[in-house]
Amino acid sequence: MESDVATPTTPFSPAEDPRTMDAIARARAERKRTETKLFELLRIPSVSTQAEHAGDCRAAAAWLRDQLADAGLARAEVLETGGLPCVYAEWLEAPAGAPTVLVYGHYDVQPPEPIELWHTPPFEPTVHDGSVFARGAADDKGQLWIHVAALRAMLADGGRLPVNVKVIFEGEEESGSEHLDAFVAAERDRLACDVVLVSDTHMLAADKPSIVASLRGMAYCEVQVTGPAHDLHSGVYGGAVRNPAEALAHMIAACKDPVTGRILIPGFYDGVIEPSSEEREALTQVGFVDSEFLDEAGITASWGEQGWSIYERIGARPTFEINGMWSGYTSPGAKTVLPSTAHAKISMRLVADQDWERISERLETHLRALAADMPGVEDVQVKRLHGGRPVLVETDIPAMRAARTALAAVFGIEPVFTREGGSIPVVATFAEILDAPTVLMGFGLPDDRLHAPNEKFSLNQLHLGVETSIAFWHAYADEHAAAAR
Amino acid sequence: MESDVATPTTPFSPAEDPRTMDAIARARAERKRTETKLFELLRIPSVSTQAEHAGDCRAAAAWLRDQLADAGLARAEVLETGGLPCVYAEWLEAPAGAPTVLVYGHYDVQPPEPIELWHTPPFEPTVHDGSVFARGAADDKGQLWIHVAALRAMLADGGRLPVNVKVIFEGEEESGSEHLDAFVAAERDRLACDVVLVSDTHMLAADKPSIVASLRGMAYCEVQVTGPAHDLHSGVYGGAVRNPAEALAHMIAACKDPVTGRILIPGFYDGVIEPSSEEREALTQVGFVDSEFLDEAGITASWGEQGWSIYERIGARPTFEINGMWSGYTSPGAKTVLPSTAHAKISMRLVADQDWERISERLETHLRALAADMPGVEDVQVKRLHGGRPVLVETDIPAMRAARTALAAVFGIEPVFTREGGSIPVVATFAEILDAPTVLMGFGLPDDRLHAPNEKFSLNQLHLGVETSIAFWHAYADEHAAAAR
Repeated sequence: MESDVATPTTPFSPAEDPRTMDAIARARAERKRTETKLFELLRIPSVSTQAEHAGDCRAAAAWLRDQLADAGLARAEVLETGGLPCVYAEWLEAPAGAPTVLVYGHYDVQPPEPIELWHTPPFEPTVHDGSVFARGAADDKGQLWIHVAALRAMLADGGRLPVNVKVIFEGEEESGSEHLDAFVAAERDRLACDVVLVSDTHMLAADKPSIVASLRGMAYCEVQVTGPAHDLHSGVYGGAVRNPAEALAHMIAACKDPVTGRILIPGFYDGVIEPSSEEREALTQVGFVDSEFLDEAGITASWGEQGWSIYERIGARPTFEINGMWSGYTSPGAKTVLPSTAHAKISMRLVADQDWERISERLETHLRALAADMPGVEDVQVKRLHGGRPVLVETDIPAMRAARTALAAVFGIEPVFTREGGSIPVVATFAEILDAPTVLMGFGLPDDRLHAPNEKFSLNQLHLGVETSIAFWHAYADEHAAAAR
Repeated sequence: MESDVATPTTPFSPAEDPRTMDAIARARAERKRTETKLFELLRIPSVSTQAEHAGDCRAAAAWLRDQLADAGLARAEVLETGGLPCVYAEWLEAPAGAPTVLVYGHYDVQPPEPIELWHTPPFEPTVHDGSVFARGAADDKGQLWIHVAALRAMLADGGRLPVNVKVIFEGEEESGSEHLDAFVAAERDRLACDVVLVSDTHMLAADKPSIVASLRGMAYCEVQVTGPAHDLHSGVYGGAVRNPAEALAHMIAACKDPVTGRILIPGFYDGVIEPSSEEREALTQVGFVDSEFLDEAGITASWGEQGWSIYERIGARPTFEINGMWSGYTSPGAKTVLPSTAHAKISMRLVADQDWERISERLETHLRALAADMPGVEDVQVKRLHGGRPVLVETDIPAMRAARTALAAVFGIEPVFTREGGSIPVVATFAEILDAPTVLMGFGLPDDRLHAPNEKFSLNQLHLGVETSIAFWHAYADEHAAAAR
């Protein structure tokens, strides 16, 4: 995004640097254990959006608390939030003047459905082709585990850290972090820090390390369109009753131009900060390969907003996507029902400075206006399931420079800054409540199939991630000291 | 439809006529038994579209075979069709020259889903407010049972029938009668008859007996639209990948004008025989009450093809209805998936002389043409689940006159001829293979909620139906003899 960021001041070689060589050696010696313990965590079906898994979520939290204590952190505990709990731990014995890093991750995972498309059971981690396949492998259990393993390698045998570290793992990220804002506000002192470190994103490729400098926000709504008061026989009533599934289809169709890809909700683009021509030029340099994107998605052609590249469409532009849609009879065979209701789950990714509440409201206004022209649509409900603000992170700050140093040292390639299509709403929370920037140093790969069947995480990325984490603490201590001079 | 049908030649009073008074008295004495035995049948979940209920369908067939034998019919047996079996029985001891009636019904029922909307369990018949509530109560178990009970009342104590009767109950009506054509062709001799009698329709109201003279045909298709090869994370891929749910919405929207209600599939209306102005005038006289229709449907306004009345929309005009639609994540909560596929079940009711195979083909052509303009739609599949021809029945034939006589005698009100929106494809089968017209003398009521939760059948209609059936045999014998003279 910004191509003129200063070169990091302190390149180093972690495996040879006397400050990190012991920890690196220990991490390498413990690779098998690091994997085995991660698989334990992956076996816990901590699906936060499904109430029947609340117990599993709590089990995952307790397990992580024990692991953090075992790794050598202090005050490891499970903290209630009013919903699913957070796990907290800290190590605050760094030298005077050293900065404090808050490591954030989430132990909850997306639902595994559709189960039948998994090649191996979603909660039975299976290693194949150098990757572990399981729900949550990359999002985010495998990635938060990187830092637990790194801290363990650093703190073993009386080891110490060059910075203070606090760890917070939440359990509601996949269900909208409903209680996190209030929790962070209430625990503002405990969580106070100079920077937040999050590994919940992906690199451009295994040989293209990258740091996310922009995140899209999100407005997620569920729509219910009601026609007749109850299901009807489509032969007896069909032709004279507005079919809510058909009405919903018309409404969805009226939300995006099927040719230009332009979102048609009035006022949708208000507030969008378009990238400058310099930034658009820089975005072409991040090494994003269209053909790889098409291969990963399993499509022959991209389609989206006309006038923007694929990379811009997924990172720099807002979206409107149907995540789910259902009405009437969906089992095998034929049933001649004229359904009473039709439903859609709709998420809109937002870019700075769109406001998710205003966007949700505009969607509702638009759908109601469409329904008003469709006699027989008796009701339209738009429920806001959750929302998050878009984020732009400053790239020329000590922690960002340290992340570049650490990635360059471990991967041997200078990382680039990218725009991520996904949303991590907590980044805005940390900025507002803790006044701390967030470094999004993720180790996922683009083909990890987050939220989809057969999610995976590369074991090589796991282990290089641990070494990058080890390198980061020292690089950040150095950058922080240099900036303070 | 035809307002100048000849008045029936032989009005009579079944409860007082010496030929029927014993049977009527017996039927009245056995009303409790008639209900109790029907409830036994309603308890069998004979859902033909769901493979796990195949055993239940066979159990229902065996139960009916036993009841037909017990009622006094001969050769009661379960006949294999290659799919779910038919039940057959006969009584062929009528006087020389008497005609033969084939009674058709179906023992299979629609799936009960959505179960949660039933006030009482769908397969636990519950009497409330004079009706029995259960899946299949009206469609068609309660109605086929009318004739079994009537035959039993006629044949008890050495009783005889004035006509020959054959009974055929099929088990695949709700799944498209896939094997019936071949079965009827193979059993042409056994099933040979002068007329087919079917009670699988409804009257206009309890005090407005009616006979269906027109049935819509149907083309039922299942559509699958494929975008990406597998489910994707909508944050990582959204905006640059054609969302198949959105594409399907655009396709559905392009099938019907949301204002005029006109179906937009090219060539869809080819072959439609529009009712003459005389017929349209006659249709206004059948006593159809718009406000009752709206109340039954639970809607404040009808919507459909502009320029046609509600009654014409559901009976005289072809339709396009979404019976089911699904894509992506449909469970509670938010899942940010960009689905790989989207699906719809679409049924089109057809009027004479539309051809269901040609209509199915035109739908497919239309959807494929739409997809061709949507890059990123990787595949469109249109599977034909079933189809049936539309039917117009002659009204001035002996059996139709007999049906009018029987209904008028029992209900005390002269019946009218109506156009039914539903489809009974077998009517065309019987016309083509057996060269026999079908009399659609149904006893359902418009608010029976066929195919929907809380299906019911009025017990009063059941018992009046039994008496009408008893009256029909004699009225038909008379009309047939008169016509032969």
